[in-house]
Amino acid sequence: MEEWTVKVNHCAVKKEKPQTDQLEFGRIFTDHMFVMDYSEPLGWHDARIVPYQPLTIDPSAMIFHYGQSVFEGLKAYQTPEGTIQLFRPEKNLQRLNRSNDRLCIPAIDEAFILEALKQLIYLDKEWIPSAEGTSLYIRPFIISTEPYIGVAPSHQYKFVIILSPVGAYYKEGINPVKIAVENHYVRAVKGGTGEAKTGGNYASSLKAQETCSQKGFAQVLWLDGVEKKYIEEVGSMNVFFKINGKVYTPMLNGSILEGVTRNSVIQLLKHWNIPVIEEKLSMEKLYQAYLDGELEEAFGTGTAAVISPIGQLSWEDKDLMINNGTTGELAKSLYTTLTNIQYGKEADPFHWVEKVSEAYAVK
Amino acid sequence: MEEWTVKVNHCAVKKEKPQTDQLEFGRIFTDHMFVMDYSEPLGWHDARIVPYQPLTIDPSAMIFHYGQSVFEGLKAYQTPEGTIQLFRPEKNLQRLNRSNDRLCIPAIDEAFILEALKQLIYLDKEWIPSAEGTSLYIRPFIISTEPYIGVAPSHQYKFVIILSPVGAYYKEGINPVKIAVENHYVRAVKGGTGEAKTGGNYASSLKAQETCSQKGFAQVLWLDGVEKKYIEEVGSMNVFFKINGKVYTPMLNGSILEGVTRNSVIQLLKHWNIPVIEEKLSMEKLYQAYLDGELEEAFGTGTAAVISPIGQLSWEDKDLMINNGTTGELAKSLYTTLTNIQYGKEADPFHWVEKVSEAYAVK
Ligand SMILES: Cc1ncc(COP(=O)(O)O)c(C=O)c1O
Ligand SMILES: Cc1ncc(COP(=O)(O)O)c(C=O)c1O
Repeated sequence: MEEWTVKVNHCAVKKEKPQTDQLEFGRIFTDHMFVMDYSEPLGWHDARIVPYQPLTIDPSAMIFHYGQSVFEGLKAYQTPEGTIQLFRPEKNLQRLNRSNDRLCIPAIDEAFILEALKQLIYLDKEWIPSAEGTSLYIRPFIISTEPYIGVAPSHQYKFVIILSPVGAYYKEGINPVKIAVENHYVRAVKGGTGEAKTGGNYASSLKAQETCSQKGFAQVLWLDGVEKKYIEEVGSMNVFFKINGKVYTPMLNGSILEGVTRNSVIQLLKHWNIPVIEEKLSMEKLYQAYLDGELEEAFGTGTAAVISPIGQLSWEDKDLMINNGTTGELAKSLYTTLTNIQYGKEADPFHWVEKVSEAYAVK
Repeated sequence: MEEWTVKVNHCAVKKEKPQTDQLEFGRIFTDHMFVMDYSEPLGWHDARIVPYQPLTIDPSAMIFHYGQSVFEGLKAYQTPEGTIQLFRPEKNLQRLNRSNDRLCIPAIDEAFILEALKQLIYLDKEWIPSAEGTSLYIRPFIISTEPYIGVAPSHQYKFVIILSPVGAYYKEGINPVKIAVENHYVRAVKGGTGEAKTGGNYASSLKAQETCSQKGFAQVLWLDGVEKKYIEEVGSMNVFFKINGKVYTPMLNGSILEGVTRNSVIQLLKHWNIPVIEEKLSMEKLYQAYLDGELEEAFGTGTAAVISPIGQLSWEDKDLMINNGTTGELAKSLYTTLTNIQYGKEADPFHWVEKVSEAYAVK
C-alpha cells in the first residue's frame, strides 16, 4: 500500500435521517462508505471514504459467478453521555482475515482498517441512533472483481464498509422464539466453509429458512452435515443450553462460525463461576436432558439480537417446551450485562469496548 | 412479464475481435449482452439486449453479502459451412431453473430465454471463432440485487447473459491430466447445494484447487462430504472410469452437478452398446480395480473440455497410473463423436443440436 491514509470525498448533500420508529434492520444506509481496492502488484491500495453510492462492476467479475466473497457484522453504540463505542471490533477483523484465508482472498491490515472504520463512523456519527436498543450496524465486505470467468482466485478485489442505523431488536421486551431442528438441509460440513463468513453459507441456508418460516418457526437449528446428530448453530447465531445448572455449547469444529457474542458469553459465564462446557453436543443428549426435566434454558447468541431465548424446539415429531416458553434468568442476565457494557452503562471488566473519539474526526 | 419481446439497443462502436491465437478462456467479451430484471409484482420484465457494459449495483445488494446467485455454461459452435449451432441448450436452461429452485430464485421462462439467447448470438455472430476447436462460450447468470442486508431471499434479481469467444481447449491434441483425490476439503454434501450451479460451491473449492496446483495437479477429485469414501466429481467436470470393459460413473445423489456432457456420454455409450453403470462408487473399489489391472481408462466430462482424460490419480500415498498416462480409445471416440456433432461434422442421431438461423436476426 503506497500510503496508509484514507482520502475523504464528502457527500454533496446529506440524506434525511430516519425517525427512530422507522428504523428497521439493514434497509437504510448512511451518507458515506469506505472503499479500498486490491490489485497486483499494488496490493490493497487507494483507501478512501466516499459518498454512499452504487458499485460499478464488470458483468464477468468473479463475484457474480463464483461467489468469492467474505463479510463481517458488528455495531457502534451511543452511550447515554453521547460517546460512541465499538464492541470487540478487533475480533471481527481477525475473523475477517480467517475467512479471507479460507476463501483465498488476500489479508487486510486489521489495525489500519480499524482506524479507517473509526474515521468513517465519526464522519457519519449523526446517523447513530440514541434510543434504547438502537445502534449503527457496520457491514465490512470483500468481493472479487477480476473480469474473468474462470474458476480461480481473483487477482482483483474491493473492500467496502457500509453503515446502517438499526432499531431495537426487541421492541416489546426480549421474547422467546420457536426453532425447528433441520433434518433435511445442511448448512455446512467439516472440510467446507462453515467457519468462514462467506456468502455461500447464507445462500445455501435460504431454502431451509423459507420452509421453516412457512411452518411458523423463526429459524432452524442446524445439525452437523455428516451424521445429522450433533447440534451446530441457529441461523446467524451460536447456541447455548443450560442443563442442570451447567451451560453447554457446541465446540468449534470447523463447520460452526466462531461468534464474537459466543466468546463473550463464555467469558462472562466463567467470570460468574457458572460451568461452561464446549463439547460435541447431540440432539439425543439434549432430548434426554429435556425428558429428565434438566433442560432449563436455551438461547442463541449473535451481534443482531445479542441473546435470543428459545422457547420451543421442534425435533422430528417432538416438541420441547423450554422454561415454559418464557425467557430464562440466565438469558436475561447475559442480555442485560452484555448490552449494558455495549452501551456504556456498566463497567467493562474485560476491556471489550473501544471508543470512537474526536481524534478520528476527518480534518 | 408485460411483453415477451426483447428490446435491442445496439452498441455505438464495435470492439476489435481477437486473433484466433490470442483466444483464452473467459477474458474477452462480445459487443452485446442480454439483461432482464425481476421485481415484485412485475415478475421478470424489461428483457433487453444492450451494449456490453458494467453493472451498477447498490453495495447493500444481497449478491455482495449472501451469495444468492446461479449460473450456467454452454457454447455456440460454427460449422464448416458457417452455420451456428447450440448443443442441448434446453438442458442448461432446465438446470438453471433447478438451481433457481434450490436458491429460492424465481424461475425463468426457458422457451423465452432460449429465443432471446439466439437473438443475442445472432447479433454477435461475427464473434464466433471458426478455427478448429474454438467456440463462443455462453454464460447466463442470475444475481440477487435487492438493497437489503438481511438473510432472506431477495425480492429483486438481474438475469444477464454474456458471451466470450474461446480458444481450443486442447491446443496440442487431447492430453491426459494429473488429478489428486481431495481428502481434507469438501465441496458439497447431501442436503447442501452441490447439485445446483451456484457461486458458493465454486468459492469453497478454491482453496483445495490452490493447494493441489502447488503440488503439480491439474484438479482435485472430490469425495463425498459424509464418509470421504465415495467419488463425486472433478473441478468442473463429472467423472467416468472404464473398468474391465464396463463404464462406471457416480450416481446422482444430490451433491453432484448433473452435467449435460455426462448425460450425453451416457446416451452415447448406451447407443454403442457399452455397459454404463451409475452407482455409489468408492475409491476403495476403484483402487482394487487398479490393483487387479482392470482400471482401463478414466476421464472427466464437461462443457469446457468435453472429455478430459485422467493419466494419473493420486490418493493418499498411492499413485494410480492409468492407461500408462496416455489417452484411452474410449475417451478419444467420445471426444471425436461429441465434438463432431457439436461442430456439425457428423450426423446427430439424438437431435442434440439446435441451429441459430437467420430467423433470429434482429430487425
Ligand atoms: C452463521 C452465524 N453464526 C453465528 C453468528 C454469531 O456471530 P457474532 O456473535 O459474531 O455476531 C453469526 C453472525 O455473525 C452467523 O452469521
Ligand atoms: C461442478 C461441475 N460439475 C460438472 C460440470 C459439467 O457439466 P456440463 O457437462 O453441463 O458442462 C460442471 C460444469 O458445468 C461443473 O461446474
